[in-house]
Amino acid sequence: MADVLIVLGSKSDSEYAEITSEILGEFGVSYDMEISSAHRRPEKTRRLSISAEKSGYKIIIAMAGYSAALPGLIASHTLLPVIGVPLPASDLKGIDSALSILQMPGGVPVCAMGIGNTGAKNAALLAVRILSLNDEMIKERLSAYQRKLAKD
Amino acid sequence: MADVLIVLGSKSDSEYAEITSEILGEFGVSYDMEISSAHRRPEKTRRLSISAEKSGYKIIIAMAGYSAALPGLIASHTLLPVIGVPLPASDLKGIDSALSILQMPGGVPVCAMGIGNTGAKNAALLAVRILSLNDEMIKERLSAYQRKLAKD
Amino acid sequence: MADVLIVLGSKSDSEYAEITSEILGEFGVSYDMEISSAHRRPEKTRRLSISAEKSGYKIIIAMAGYSAALPGLIASHTLLPVIGVPLPASDLKGIDSALSILQMPGGVPVCAMGIGNTGAKNAALLAVRILSLNDEMIKERLSAYQRKLAKD
Amino acid sequence: MADVLIVLGSKSDSEYAEITSEILGEFGVSYDMEISSAHRRPEKTRRLSISAEKSGYKIIIAMAGYSAALPGLIASHTLLPVIGVPLPASDLKGIDSALSILQMPGGVPVCAMGIGNTGAKNAALLAVRILSLNDEMIKERLSAYQRKLAKD
Amino acid sequence: MADVLIVLGSKSDSEYAEITSEILGEFGVSYDMEISSAHRRPEKTRRLSISAEKSGYKIIIAMAGYSAALPGLIASHTLLPVIGVPLPASDLKGIDSALSILQMPGGVPVCAMGIGNTGAKNAALLAVRILSLNDEMIKERLSAYQRKLAKD
Amino acid sequence: MADVLIVLGSKSDSEYAEITSEILGEFGVSYDMEISSAHRRPEKTRRLSISAEKSGYKIIIAMAGYSAALPGLIASHTLLPVIGVPLPASDLKGIDSALSILQMPGGVPVCAMGIGNTGAKNAALLAVRILSLNDEMIKERLSAYQRKLAKD
Amino acid sequence: MADVLIVLGSKSDSEYAEITSEILGEFGVSYDMEISSAHRRPEKTRRLSISAEKSGYKIIIAMAGYSAALPGLIASHTLLPVIGVPLPASDLKGIDSALSILQMPGGVPVCAMGIGNTGAKNAALLAVRILSLNDEMIKERLSAYQRKLAKD
Amino acid sequence: MADVLIVLGSKSDSEYAEITSEILGEFGVSYDMEISSAHRRPEKTRRLSISAEKSGYKIIIAMAGYSAALPGLIASHTLLPVIGVPLPASDLKGIDSALSILQMPGGVPVCAMGIGNTGAKNAALLAVRILSLNDEMIKERLSAYQRKLAKD
Repeated sequence: MADVLIVLGSKSDSEYAEITSEILGEFGVSYDMEISSAHRRPEKTRRLSISAEKSGYKIIIAMAGYSAALPGLIASHTLLPVIGVPLPASDLKGIDSALSILQMPGGVPVCAMGIGNTGAKNAALLAVRILSLNDEMIKERLSAYQRKLAKD
Repeated sequence: MADVLIVLGSKSDSEYAEITSEILGEFGVSYDMEISSAHRRPEKTRRLSISAEKSGYKIIIAMAGYSAALPGLIASHTLLPVIGVPLPASDLKGIDSALSILQMPGGVPVCAMGIGNTGAKNAALLAVRILSLNDEMIKERLSAYQRKLAKD
Repeated sequence: MADVLIVLGSKSDSEYAEITSEILGEFGVSYDMEISSAHRRPEKTRRLSISAEKSGYKIIIAMAGYSAALPGLIASHTLLPVIGVPLPASDLKGIDSALSILQMPGGVPVCAMGIGNTGAKNAALLAVRILSLNDEMIKERLSAYQRKLAKD
Repeated sequence: MADVLIVLGSKSDSEYAEITSEILGEFGVSYDMEISSAHRRPEKTRRLSISAEKSGYKIIIAMAGYSAALPGLIASHTLLPVIGVPLPASDLKGIDSALSILQMPGGVPVCAMGIGNTGAKNAALLAVRILSLNDEMIKERLSAYQRKLAKD
Repeated sequence: MADVLIVLGSKSDSEYAEITSEILGEFGVSYDMEISSAHRRPEKTRRLSISAEKSGYKIIIAMAGYSAALPGLIASHTLLPVIGVPLPASDLKGIDSALSILQMPGGVPVCAMGIGNTGAKNAALLAVRILSLNDEMIKERLSAYQRKLAKD
Repeated sequence: MADVLIVLGSKSDSEYAEITSEILGEFGVSYDMEISSAHRRPEKTRRLSISAEKSGYKIIIAMAGYSAALPGLIASHTLLPVIGVPLPASDLKGIDSALSILQMPGGVPVCAMGIGNTGAKNAALLAVRILSLNDEMIKERLSAYQRKLAKD
Repeated sequence: MADVLIVLGSKSDSEYAEITSEILGEFGVSYDMEISSAHRRPEKTRRLSISAEKSGYKIIIAMAGYSAALPGLIASHTLLPVIGVPLPASDLKGIDSALSILQMPGGVPVCAMGIGNTGAKNAALLAVRILSLNDEMIKERLSAYQRKLAKD
Repeated sequence: MADVLIVLGSKSDSEYAEITSEILGEFGVSYDMEISSAHRRPEKTRRLSISAEKSGYKIIIAMAGYSAALPGLIASHTLLPVIGVPLPASDLKGIDSALSILQMPGGVPVCAMGIGNTGAKNAALLAVRILSLNDEMIKERLSAYQRKLAKD
């Protein structure tokens, strides 16, 4: 039973999911990874979203390029916090995805991160911050991480 | 059994749906109208999309502001042609919605129209063009409309 | 007598037309391809547009970069549905073409697709959806395609 | 036989054409004004463009909002210099029109002016500069105008 | 001891904080509100950030216009999750603030919400989702809210 | 005594000036070329501008990247028509230069062309159109060029 | 003999210059104000720039809308530090002016401030900071201002 | 005791700091360089900012990519003039950093330079202009530099 579910819109963007999962791993946060496009696999995405809470996940990180509907679609089917990472897959270099994730209508929140690499990294760190609210071990690792960050 | 299903993401944007429906009415094209947000009412949106073809609809026109996921979500659940109209509801005046609708990933097509009033009008006219492929009456009205357009 | 006419604004962008034609071919949809710039060959473009319906075409797909006037110009000379694909040919990477195609004035509809590769692909798929409204064979292939999409 | 032909894409934008014509009038430059949409009245636009030179016009000023295809369409049918003025008619406040006019593909030149009021004014002044190349009277008025400009 | 700390960059933007606090109130989530500019009151902002966790806050919501450094500055001084809301205070209507909040460098995560009203609302709802991970009462209210959302 | 003066803001952008001069050459239009930055060599630019008309030039083509002040500066010192070509020299790929050239304030007109290669080409063609107003030879070459364009 | 010269591109933007001059006045910094457009009054602008240092000015603040060439033009004629304030005068709301001022080519520096009101205010404050480097009185007032800022 | 403090947000951007320091060196201006991220090392950044004046620095140049909070954060902790250089580190090529630095709220001024190389160069030249206000030697070198600039 993992804490974080990473959903990637397209296999071709897996380099970004690896950044996220590596950071989660450093903090000892368990995660599962799924590839499920909002548009090409809506039913799978819906099932993943609806069952996420029962499956024991606490946070969902969704990454997608183009008109990145994935994080919003997931957020509409779950009550878990959803973190969205816009990817620079199209000719517009991710500003399309960023606006798609950022400009959610009122009522269904999605947490937007930066475009690409840094967003993928920070998505993991935000998940860690949320999980640390109720996990002293993670909180300590986070403190250590922050101190290390300041030193490097 | 209407030919066109208009789906509006929010009741507050109904002025745009009226532009569309008025044009459809001028051409004698039957339509139904539903209000169903992609994010606030995903299940209703899904049901509408899945059942649209069986309900006899031939074309779906979906209108939404902000990160307008509605047209894409509908297109992922139906094989009917979906026309998306971005609305200038947010502070970004519709460029957010336009990119969300335009930049669909490969595999699930959505037909993007212009932002706001003109998009609402042209969505109806595009639906009419599609329907006229198999309806001589509509085709004639379309010819008349185009001639009138050139005169005014 | 083909069903779809693909018009490409410049020979240098033929890679995109190939994406479109390959998908049409997969669905057994017949097509012709023409190269005709809106600005450099306005008369040819006009003749193609005016005669398209009589030539038996049902849908026109027009692809162009820069200030992509091609789809709009064609749409003004025919009553057939016109699908426009903006191409990332200029230094602005297609946002110029996308706005040119998207922001059609009221009265003459053009259906805008995404920029570049995905738009080229989805243009074909949208044409297939429209044609499937009156062609059971295509409808079946479309269902199969969608199922395959969900599996891959 | 006027020297300048002003073509306005839509009657609703006539305030801009008035700015232009007023300036032309101040310089004693003769002009005619036509309303002719590139998309709604392509044949009229084409006829105007093709016959412009024979009608004695030396310069064409074309003003349009949205995906402003008008200046480019005219330029493709005439060898006269064409000046395009993007108008802030849509929700995007003219950046759509500006890119449509500015980003002409190679081979068919259009001279883009600023968006709205200033573009309308400068279009007239540019026409005056061009006409002054072969008209001493206009040249003198231009010198006087520039001196007055510096004083106000 | 409140659960959420709302920090507003400028008193003139308090309308947005009221949207947020009203939603939090509906869910019975306790909150405090502070006005503290990142640039005009850096020491106060720093103190608030450093002491936030000890003060018992679990989540910080920071709202600011212009080059909205507030959420990032706070996030750099605390390990709590920080939610940032860009406000449309400048002539650029919030795209400046949105990019400032969204494009955080790797290492210090900030969760970006939409611009203005909807972002203010969704910031509260995201906080509620996070708090509901360990609070059954809030979880139930969230379920009820989502059901009500779907009905309205 | 040449007809066209090409002014290039920086030697590093000479590839664009070559495109322009090659086209002018094809039409038998004489030209001179100068390198003179608006900001680094304001006095030279001013002298060139002030003396251009006396030197017999009829048209000035000015090309520059970044905040391309060159065309506007020249236009403020001469009554000749000035054509400005924005170059994609900066990280913003020419949108900075394009807006700088396009958005001239009322009173001093500059004719903006597209960004980079196509703008460089079209600047020459526009100059040719202007010169053809009083030169039958050039007019004939222009007709031939246009016919050839349509054939290729 | 004043310390700061404020140059405003157009009388219609004097509301912004008043913001600047009021702040300078609060700090007891002397200033003169001139209206001089880069494009409409290039000679006056040049004279002001060339003579500024001899006139005893230490800093020049230049404010302009549209393609705001004023700060750059001044900076090219003086060795004094030049502060540029982009104004939201055009339909593009100052993003045109901001890029024109910001993206100066290498060699001639201009210091860009924010668009409109806040830029006008901060231009004065930056001038004060520069002058305080060699004026203890101003330095003290600046300290007091900053403390007051933090209190309000 | 150096005159200029260069603060770089990330070691990976040191190529830009080298451009700046090389120019400062040409003018005989002393400088120190520090790497200190606004977000990853807020305390170091704060200490550097607070102590900068006492350490004898007269000007601070801060360079950062992404949501470049560094220059603003420094400016909020010092009364020295702060020059900010946006870097093209993210997928958005520096427009994110440029807006973050440019759009400072009223009260705390930051002087924004162009994106990347040219900004790095001009930051040094602006610092030199400011220092030359009270240093005849630097003033002379600046005159020589400007003359050389005009010759090259």
